[in-house]
Amino acid sequence: MSDQPPQVRPHLAQLPGYAPVVPLAERARQAGLQPEDCLKLDANENPYGMHPRVREALAQALSDPGFGSIYPDPNQAELRQALSRYTGLDPSRILAGAGADELLDLSFRAILPPGGTVVTCTPSFGMYPFLADINELNLIDIPRDTRFALRPDKLLEAVEQAGRDNIVVLTSPNNPSGDLVRRDLLRRILDLGATVILDEAYVEFAGMDASAQNLLAEFPRLIVMRTFSKWAGIAGLRLGYALANPDLVTDLIKIKQPYNVNQAAEIAAIAAIDSAAEIGTQIDAIRETRDQLFNALLELEGLTPLPSQANFILIRVDPNVGTGRELHDRLASVGVFTRTYSGPLLTNYLRISVPRADQIDTLKMRLLEAV
Amino acid sequence: MSDQPPQVRPHLAQLPGYAPVVPLAERARQAGLQPEDCLKLDANENPYGMHPRVREALAQALSDPGFGSIYPDPNQAELRQALSRYTGLDPSRILAGAGADELLDLSFRAILPPGGTVVTCTPSFGMYPFLADINELNLIDIPRDTRFALRPDKLLEAVEQAGRDNIVVLTSPNNPSGDLVRRDLLRRILDLGATVILDEAYVEFAGMDASAQNLLAEFPRLIVMRTFSKWAGIAGLRLGYALANPDLVTDLIKIKQPYNVNQAAEIAAIAAIDSAAEIGTQIDAIRETRDQLFNALLELEGLTPLPSQANFILIRVDPNVGTGRELHDRLASVGVFTRTYSGPLLTNYLRISVPRADQIDTLKMRLLEAV
Repeated sequence: MSDQPPQVRPHLAQLPGYAPVVPLAERARQAGLQPEDCLKLDANENPYGMHPRVREALAQALSDPGFGSIYPDPNQAELRQALSRYTGLDPSRILAGAGADELLDLSFRAILPPGGTVVTCTPSFGMYPFLADINELNLIDIPRDTRFALRPDKLLEAVEQAGRDNIVVLTSPNNPSGDLVRRDLLRRILDLGATVILDEAYVEFAGMDASAQNLLAEFPRLIVMRTFSKWAGIAGLRLGYALANPDLVTDLIKIKQPYNVNQAAEIAAIAAIDSAAEIGTQIDAIRETRDQLFNALLELEGLTPLPSQANFILIRVDPNVGTGRELHDRLASVGVFTRTYSGPLLTNYLRISVPRADQIDTLKMRLLEAV
Repeated sequence: MSDQPPQVRPHLAQLPGYAPVVPLAERARQAGLQPEDCLKLDANENPYGMHPRVREALAQALSDPGFGSIYPDPNQAELRQALSRYTGLDPSRILAGAGADELLDLSFRAILPPGGTVVTCTPSFGMYPFLADINELNLIDIPRDTRFALRPDKLLEAVEQAGRDNIVVLTSPNNPSGDLVRRDLLRRILDLGATVILDEAYVEFAGMDASAQNLLAEFPRLIVMRTFSKWAGIAGLRLGYALANPDLVTDLIKIKQPYNVNQAAEIAAIAAIDSAAEIGTQIDAIRETRDQLFNALLELEGLTPLPSQANFILIRVDPNVGTGRELHDRLASVGVFTRTYSGPLLTNYLRISVPRADQIDTLKMRLLEAV
């Protein structure tokens, strides 16, 4: 017999792990505050929470004696039909997952062999390098410039040189810089024959005109990722979806976890789609508060906000004020939880999610206090 | 550019996919019946559904304005604490997942390199070969004998010969044959130094004395898998857990999807643990109905039930009655949905989940009609 536990594979053993958001209760405890006195602005959630209509749909479902005890539909027929109404695309182009995270992992895993390549442009969503590591992939990083703009020539060159087994992952609007990927650049990358995952987790805050989903018919190697965690306020229930070529969707459905989307997420997502107009009012409010926050930050000496198309703002922190980490810590001590980063590019930056309209004055006050 | 969609990797392209259960509404439609007139006995769910206490806990949670919109805790602190109460093991030995399915996949993926080996004993849960295929693993099958008993000598020989990179997967009680893995056989396999996943999805119906969890301290290579889909009636919400060596749990937490357990599942599971005594009454009822069903089947000419420690019974169908598939179809036409199998070993068999106590007479009548 062996007195050693099973070892994980060598490429996994050294991983630092994904740095997830610390739960609110824990952060509040560290600050010595009650959770309700804190502003949780660290994970780009919908500050208005789940919409009452979605809540009602769940309460309604809960009164059905069959709720929860039966396995979900592996083919997601009803959900994909609803997503078809929401996107205007055929259900055959749609696949739902337990958050876009699951579908990112599934795409990497299904398409790329170990040793394959993910081309990405940091700073961006931390899940891409994490999933590249898990899947034993190489990461080619074409960092954004000092103003966080993509570098088209370098990116196109990297795509051309990356060979066959690669996926280019772009984020639009980008997390954390808030800017959109230009349509002409996306086209040029797709024209090279690259497989592109375009992560549109925040696109509802830019307006749906900003989406590249209308390129799907033209480019069979484009995969658009979306989520209900941001605009629809159901991050806790886990629902994302991919828009892709129908043949790819057929393949991915065969190899995904059969029961990957839980029933609560399914019901909430369908209700969110049926209440998209009402939730649109929340989105409008978030955009308006984003502009107010942007203007307030402009007026604070030592802070420079970047224009954002998403529901967060990246802030440059002047060295006189401190590093991003230091400002983050000062804000945390007064109950404002933001997101900071390791790595040299973002040492002097801080990301802050847009709060509710009724929280903006408190936020301004606490910012003033902390700067 | 390319006019072809991305291809999935060669070992995935040919897969038939997991054969999941067809949704009730769809099966009822095919039978020309209303869902409420049907007996869904095809997926071993809890026929009593989610317990009222669990339902209340979810309703309570739903009234909290913060419900659902915040990302779940990646470390599952509260949930693992509750699972610790339920199992009596330290939280450091516990990891929760989106169903045991996710944790089976995670274990294969984390421990075995492509080309590694899964040793299994068919007939058993269809997810094992599916996940072996997905992970590019070889399957060594040591089939059970014609009475579905494990063959210890052949199994031990296979484990000895399987070399380093292998995991032995055993199911206790086994799905579909309903029998337990003998403790002495399990010990002998573990004594060889093998990594063993013991899938105890149905152990609550055998009684917790049947669990091998007390071997965990002695054997660091034992992983016990459990689920809330069966006893706790929350298959639709997705909650499973693994009991394992703390070092392995630490590694797996780092590489799992950070937000793998959704908030509804977390709340429901904690409520189920807090109401374990009440749900125990349902489990007792299911065991009693299982015995009634067993006796009723014994009296039906042409059907031979196998003794079962789980919440289902495997039935041998006499060729005079037809194949398992034929009986399955006749039962489906009268609204009784059961599980049938492809593959030669189970041609003459049918698996039927134990219904509610108040459904047993209807079931007996329809069985009589169909035989």
